[in-house]
Amino acid sequence: MEKLLLLIPLISGVIAILLALYFAKLVMSEDPGNERMQEVSGYIESGAKTFIKVQYKILTIFVIALAVILYFVPGLSIGHVIAYLIGCVGSMWAGWLGMIVGVKANTRAAQGCTISTKKGFDISFFGGAVMGLAVVGVALIGISAIYWTFGEPVGDQPLYVLGFSFGASSIALFMKCGGGIYTKTADVGADLVGKAEYNLPEDDPRNPASIADNVGDNVGDIAGMGSDLFDSYVASIVAAMLLSVFLSLNDATNKIYFTMLPIMLSAFGLFASIIGIYAIKRWKTGDPSSLLNNGTYIATVVFVGLAAICALMFSVFITDPIDLAFLWALWACAAIGLASGIVIGFTSDYYTREDKKPTREIAHAAQEGDAVVILSGFSYGLVSVVPPAVGIVAAMTFSYLIPFSLVGTFEAGVFGVAIAAVGMLSIVGTIVSNDAYGPICDNARGIAEQGDLGDDVIRVADKLDMAGNTAKAITKGYAIGAANLTVLALLFSFSQDAGAAIMNNINLLNVSVLIGAFIGVVAPALFSAVLILAVQRNAALMVDEIRRQFEEDPGILKGETAADFNKCIDIATKGALKELVIPSIISIAIPMAVGLVFGVAALGAFLAGSILSGFVFAIFMANSGGAWDNAKKWIEDGNLGGKGTDAHKASITGDTVGDPFKDTAGPSINTLLVVMSLTASIFIGLFLALNAGSGLLGAFF
Amino acid sequence: MEKLLLLIPLISGVIAILLALYFAKLVMSEDPGNERMQEVSGYIESGAKTFIKVQYKILTIFVIALAVILYFVPGLSIGHVIAYLIGCVGSMWAGWLGMIVGVKANTRAAQGCTISTKKGFDISFFGGAVMGLAVVGVALIGISAIYWTFGEPVGDQPLYVLGFSFGASSIALFMKCGGGIYTKTADVGADLVGKAEYNLPEDDPRNPASIADNVGDNVGDIAGMGSDLFDSYVASIVAAMLLSVFLSLNDATNKIYFTMLPIMLSAFGLFASIIGIYAIKRWKTGDPSSLLNNGTYIATVVFVGLAAICALMFSVFITDPIDLAFLWALWACAAIGLASGIVIGFTSDYYTREDKKPTREIAHAAQEGDAVVILSGFSYGLVSVVPPAVGIVAAMTFSYLIPFSLVGTFEAGVFGVAIAAVGMLSIVGTIVSNDAYGPICDNARGIAEQGDLGDDVIRVADKLDMAGNTAKAITKGYAIGAANLTVLALLFSFSQDAGAAIMNNINLLNVSVLIGAFIGVVAPALFSAVLILAVQRNAALMVDEIRRQFEEDPGILKGETAADFNKCIDIATKGALKELVIPSIISIAIPMAVGLVFGVAALGAFLAGSILSGFVFAIFMANSGGAWDNAKKWIEDGNLGGKGTDAHKASITGDTVGDPFKDTAGPSINTLLVVMSLTASIFIGLFLALNAGSGLLGAFF
Repeated sequence: MEKLLLLIPLISGVIAILLALYFAKLVMSEDPGNERMQEVSGYIESGAKTFIKVQYKILTIFVIALAVILYFVPGLSIGHVIAYLIGCVGSMWAGWLGMIVGVKANTRAAQGCTISTKKGFDISFFGGAVMGLAVVGVALIGISAIYWTFGEPVGDQPLYVLGFSFGASSIALFMKCGGGIYTKTADVGADLVGKAEYNLPEDDPRNPASIADNVGDNVGDIAGMGSDLFDSYVASIVAAMLLSVFLSLNDATNKIYFTMLPIMLSAFGLFASIIGIYAIKRWKTGDPSSLLNNGTYIATVVFVGLAAICALMFSVFITDPIDLAFLWALWACAAIGLASGIVIGFTSDYYTREDKKPTREIAHAAQEGDAVVILSGFSYGLVSVVPPAVGIVAAMTFSYLIPFSLVGTFEAGVFGVAIAAVGMLSIVGTIVSNDAYGPICDNARGIAEQGDLGDDVIRVADKLDMAGNTAKAITKGYAIGAANLTVLALLFSFSQDAGAAIMNNINLLNVSVLIGAFIGVVAPALFSAVLILAVQRNAALMVDEIRRQFEEDPGILKGETAADFNKCIDIATKGALKELVIPSIISIAIPMAVGLVFGVAALGAFLAGSILSGFVFAIFMANSGGAWDNAKKWIEDGNLGGKGTDAHKASITGDTVGDPFKDTAGPSINTLLVVMSLTASIFIGLFLALNAGSGLLGAFF
Repeated sequence: MEKLLLLIPLISGVIAILLALYFAKLVMSEDPGNERMQEVSGYIESGAKTFIKVQYKILTIFVIALAVILYFVPGLSIGHVIAYLIGCVGSMWAGWLGMIVGVKANTRAAQGCTISTKKGFDISFFGGAVMGLAVVGVALIGISAIYWTFGEPVGDQPLYVLGFSFGASSIALFMKCGGGIYTKTADVGADLVGKAEYNLPEDDPRNPASIADNVGDNVGDIAGMGSDLFDSYVASIVAAMLLSVFLSLNDATNKIYFTMLPIMLSAFGLFASIIGIYAIKRWKTGDPSSLLNNGTYIATVVFVGLAAICALMFSVFITDPIDLAFLWALWACAAIGLASGIVIGFTSDYYTREDKKPTREIAHAAQEGDAVVILSGFSYGLVSVVPPAVGIVAAMTFSYLIPFSLVGTFEAGVFGVAIAAVGMLSIVGTIVSNDAYGPICDNARGIAEQGDLGDDVIRVADKLDMAGNTAKAITKGYAIGAANLTVLALLFSFSQDAGAAIMNNINLLNVSVLIGAFIGVVAPALFSAVLILAVQRNAALMVDEIRRQFEEDPGILKGETAADFNKCIDIATKGALKELVIPSIISIAIPMAVGLVFGVAALGAFLAGSILSGFVFAIFMANSGGAWDNAKKWIEDGNLGGKGTDAHKASITGDTVGDPFKDTAGPSINTLLVVMSLTASIFIGLFLALNAGSGLLGAFF
């Protein structure tokens, strides 16, 4: 009956959902502003809803089809299929709720800015917190309920949670890629014609793509980023639970505690996040950016303390001294994981901050023209891979070595790595809240502009928006680090599922393994290219449409007739959904093909190769894009001659190139890696059934 | 006395050198044109000589210092040091000869264009052939002489050739990186001010950086590319010879033939190249581009035939049927290697040809501005990685499987892969000739422009130049493929040197191995970034200098006073040499650090990781750059509105971004990979001496 402990995450999850709903009510009770603002917000809301509805319709077909396939995969049962469906529905619901509250919060936040900075901040932040808490709540309820229900028959092994994770991730992939393509189609299209050709300011209501751009912030940055972190969060817990099965403990009856440790740590992490959120609420003054960062720091410190309490609680049941020492080693791993996540986030921030050397140098490079600013941002983006790589390597090394040195088994070491990933993601509630805050402010700024709230209010909204951008930069680094450590844990869990014979065979001198690694390294590069081309293709359609509207109705530019927003929303919606086909093939079909043709060991190497190369591409793209964006903003603040100079023009080129880098391709790689890893794990029975796991070509090697 | 067979490569090498000298004499006997042309050519020559002299001075210190270090490395002896020094000197000599003839040939080729296209073509081609033949000659003489001299005492094991290869590669790294930085510093600088700000045409004598630009073609594209292929060529032969040691043959006395097979195949490849060169010489008419391609095809077909003769010759001595079958399997591997090299070259060409879809789409993207053309070229560059990756994977798979399925040992399989690399590089004489032809025509065009030879002659030179560009695109893909297969062979040879215990340990689930792979994947990205930043920094200095000259002396722009070329040459020279420090640290210090800290197995994974990620970056950068270049040219040919349009301006931005991609960072990655692999191999005694090869941290994992 140790499983009664599962009530803790289950109840925590319910608390998270209730809090999310409470925050949603809080936000809804605020003043939605004047009629024009409500009108604009209404457009954004209806655009976002349309997109999500169409997307969910398509997803439903996909989900059902995949559910049927899963049912027939060797080693999977109806339990997995049910868990998978719950994961899908949970992910869809959390995304829907977070986004709806986001589009409701924007106009209220704009109105709040007329009262005070803190008021505007609070509304945006609580709007974002709904997403953060919903994500955590759904994850905790889902995992603990599935483990509770399906745990008993197979000796308490957490076999079915993998299905839940696969469901969450397959939805996340579509949300992230689709949202990412949508948001940048609109953004790039709006900028290329509106800003560059007609000199319209950002968010100008005459720009037919302005509403689509705001919709994009919601579907791409709130729903998309939320589901990205949701899938990493779930996967990190699931990977650790699956790895716990392979632990050889001194006292075998202790196993159940270690299996429950990941979900329990996550539940305690939720409370750390809530404390962080309430701390932010209590502060009456302060720079928005410091408020967000302080919330993160508080959550971090509180988590380390709460995790110790969690370990103390478990130590009541664990009497064997070695197992007890192992437990505390895992506490250290969780702390290391979280600390390294924070460090990775903040070093990423260094490479994209406008007051630091890289971004400054990129801005200066803009003085020498478009080509030089591109070269400079490209190179610094690649250089910026090094510090987070050191961070991940350090996290992996220490979280492996500490338990390994105590217990002496490989299994204990990799369980430490998995717990580090859990620790890193434990305060995901805070992180998603901070991240979802950004697009709400961004929209609020646009609504303030379109609702004629005056320059002072716009300035307040701008300040909130800037804090959102910083938070976004930190979150992105953190999300990549967290996803990376999670997929490393998944790699270990996949390999252990594959059995010792295959594990010993994931040797790079083995030619089929080397081929697997080769394909793995190429996959994220190809995936990025496909997404960027998709944005480019759709943005071109958008550009044509905007030009057409301006040419056919000169009244639009004069502000006399309203632009046809719906046409632009339609282009972004259809384009984004159409372009999802190839990325989803890459993420599911390629690992399937590698596993079936070259075997399970090659598939392991494929995953490792894709994790490493995906890390490089994700960080490089996120940071190049962020640095270009901020270099442009720094110039727009009046530096190097300010707006209208050649340097400014060049910096806009940098920013436009960076848009799909940082908001489409870069962050989608996280989800790609998780989906590929889970695909490998969930279909492993199929691969093992073929030539004992050596694949179609296995007999030849 | 089977070693008498070594006389074949030795004499072949001497023939190659003699032919090179004969071609050099042929070229020198041509009319060097009018006074102005000779003057310009004289500037180029003196600029190139200055750069090489300063570079060689610095290199000498580096070479001596490294020689002393090598002497004290466990497992190395004075023989290795001597071989190393010979490799260095040989590489320097070949680079020097090729480049000198190149700078002599340019004015003569320009003058030749006044007579006929074929005359201009011949002079350029024979000028290039000097480099091609010198490279092959030095390699064949060096390897066979060293093996002959040092082979006996250790039972005919080719232990010392590794030193020769390390010497060749360490020089190549400096030549390639230094030349690459030089050429693009001058090119980008000249373009940014001369073309973009003052609308001067290419090669305009008023542009102070025009001579430096021409010098750059010679030091970067002739000496640099020559040494790049030289080092791959030597390394491929050496890797195969080293791997032959581990073969278990049915009849042990046959071992010597398999050890000699790589160098023998290369010698026969030389004759295939010579036949190709003479075929080109014989054709009296024809499009320059087809002439070059036909030469390559002929050399390919002839090589397959000659390799069969080589195998036939060996089959006289080899009586055991299994060993004999193995010999013929290796013949197939050599043919597969060469065929896949050609296929990779031509598919790379597809992605950069102006009449194919990718480049066309990039050109169309230019109509939507600078940002879109960058996004498009970037994405197609990444997509273009897929076909050559398939090519390499196919070459590796078949060349492993054919001998493996016959003999049944891993060692036989990887020897097949090594022989495929040898086969791929066998016709390097033709490839280098075609490649070095390009910069000579490029220079000839400039000299024709500066020497007032009239539009007709310039048009002829342009035609030759365009053929050179196509050849260059093919060569680049080929060079990357060849380097890649070679470093794979080096990886196998390194691992076998490390011993079975460590070989079995290069498992990606081993955390220290995973860390090694992680560092390996990051290294080429960092290396590329450092080189691009170096170009950007130096180009900025060049830009300042050109602007200064134009401002201080308005007579320059009017054509009344001569620009100060030397100042620009000086900036390029000093900048290129200064910037070499970090790349050389990356290439030598990082593998040393991985080997010493994480151990030999991690170092193996580091090499594998760097090979895979290096392949992606090298192909992506080479092809993006090539496609941007040709998209610009296509627009300049009058398409999409032609010169002066916004699309043209955007395409120039693409081309400028692509310059350091395709001519500095991309191709330098090949040399980086070879140097890192050889560093690992040559210092292996040191790594193995530390904690039995598990490194400083080894005890903890």
